[in-house]
Amino acid sequence: AQLALEKDFETQRAYDTRFRVLMEATREAFMFVSVSNGRIFEANTGAATLMSCRRDEMTETLLDSVCRPRGKGDLVGTLKSEAQSEAPSAVEVESAKDGTVLRLFPTIFRAAGDRTLLLRVEPMTDTRGTQDTLT
Amino acid sequence: AQLALEKDFETQRAYDTRFRVLMEATREAFMFVSVSNGRIFEANTGAATLMSCRRDEMTETLLDSVCRPRGKGDLVGTLKSEAQSEAPSAVEVESAKDGTVLRLFPTIFRAAGDRTLLLRVEPMTDTRGTQDTLT
Repeated sequence: AQLALEKDFETQRAYDTRFRVLMEATREAFMFVSVSNGRIFEANTGAATLMSCRRDEMTETLLDSVCRPRGKGDLVGTLKSEAQSEAPSAVEVESAKDGTVLRLFPTIFRAAGDRTLLLRVEPMTDTRGTQDTLT
Repeated sequence: AQLALEKDFETQRAYDTRFRVLMEATREAFMFVSVSNGRIFEANTGAATLMSCRRDEMTETLLDSVCRPRGKGDLVGTLKSEAQSEAPSAVEVESAKDGTVLRLFPTIFRAAGDRTLLLRVEPMTDTRGTQDTLT
């Protein structure tokens, strides 16, 4: 049983490591947000840079405190509805630090019983490949 | 103990899920290869498409059987040396299926005691952002 536990732990660590390596290897900007509490629980350096934050400042922070929606209503709620819609579109936000306009492309999924949003972050000026984003 | 085990299992599943969601959400093409046996253990749809394979065909397959190096020598060995060099450069390969020339950008890391290569795959014609890839 001890060996089995160690093996489980190693497998878990391996997934954790792969996840972190992939987060930093991709040149796109990504954040993971818990729908239940609205907090960012993972963000890569690319996302932190676009939000004008340090990566360690982002973790466990409310999404609402790093950016605000340009439209009306609750940001996490809007992202959730977009992610669940048939043809999701980007949600425009402004970085709380310096007002930079950014677009969030949401995907929703369930992990360990909690609904999670994966947000791809793009600057407004970056137009490449926006069309094929949410297919 | 049972509850703790279930919790561990849930945490592991959560990482696994996040990893898989991220693999498919990124618009870049990625493969994970075990250095010890040279097999691809994860590839996203983008990587499979560039290799002219189905994604399920890639898993547990030898990297050597889906692509061949354009230069001399052993492919996994070459990727490993590049990943460990101070200024890594891309390794050119040809897809085994149709000879398409592709570039592999390697990163090396250790997970669960096994050395692993993360390969970002780019078509030769795609020149955007190649310079800042391996910083």
